[in-house]
Amino acid sequence: MLTTSPAAPLPERLACMAADLRSLIAECNPDAVAVERIFFQTNVRTAISVAQASGVALAIAAAAGCEVAQYTPNEVKQAVAGYGAATKEQVQRMVTTQLGLAERPRPVDAADALALALCHLTVAPRLKRWEEAGR
Amino acid sequence: MLTTSPAAPLPERLACMAADLRSLIAECNPDAVAVERIFFQTNVRTAISVAQASGVALAIAAAAGCEVAQYTPNEVKQAVAGYGAATKEQVQRMVTTQLGLAERPRPVDAADALALALCHLTVAPRLKRWEEAGR
Repeated sequence: MLTTSPAAPLPERLACMAADLRSLIAECNPDAVAVERIFFQTNVRTAISVAQASGVALAIAAAAGCEVAQYTPNEVKQAVAGYGAATKEQVQRMVTTQLGLAERPRPVDAADALALALCHLTVAPRLKRWEEAGR
Repeated sequence: MLTTSPAAPLPERLACMAADLRSLIAECNPDAVAVERIFFQTNVRTAISVAQASGVALAIAAAAGCEVAQYTPNEVKQAVAGYGAATKEQVQRMVTTQLGLAERPRPVDAADALALALCHLTVAPRLKRWEEAGR
């Protein structure tokens, strides 16, 4: 997990996240990057900085030439737990089982990130088949 | 003004904006970059992508070592037109006068950007004096 100092000003935290994410992509060379799609139903204050961070992630993934996919939290839960309103705990359990992990990934954010990746692995080939069938 | 193709997917538009902004900062070597502070009172759909773009701008300005300042639209209007609820037209007129331009900057977004820069030039030294006085 990438973390930044909560004490640092927001522009510096975003710059730090950008640099770390760029290094991580260079190191892992992923084909695709999945980013949670942002909605503003709940906490508007938090949502702004989350959207700003997601913008940085999208820009860096695209600049690195990765395929970039976005999924809503409900799409992730549906894909991973078979149920769009699954609880955090159900998602954690499914991620643990599907990846054959010895124990649940901690913190919860890490489980969410793994669920997002699993969602992409499930949904992307299906979308591709639909796209090909529609031609 | 930096523009991106409206037809391109969002991650690519953000990556394109990031590259253009990085070049512009390298070319102009500014001491400071002022970015509009985002609020979500009106159009939530637009606000998400605006916040994502602002996150990219903040990260790039900070990574380039620039001082980064954020102002709300009301702070900008107050600083430039002396009135927080000034109309777009009043702001355009004040920007034209203060910068001694032959005609109003077009499009309106360019006038807004110039107003933001003028706001920073007005407010930043005052904030600095307050800060120094408080020591």
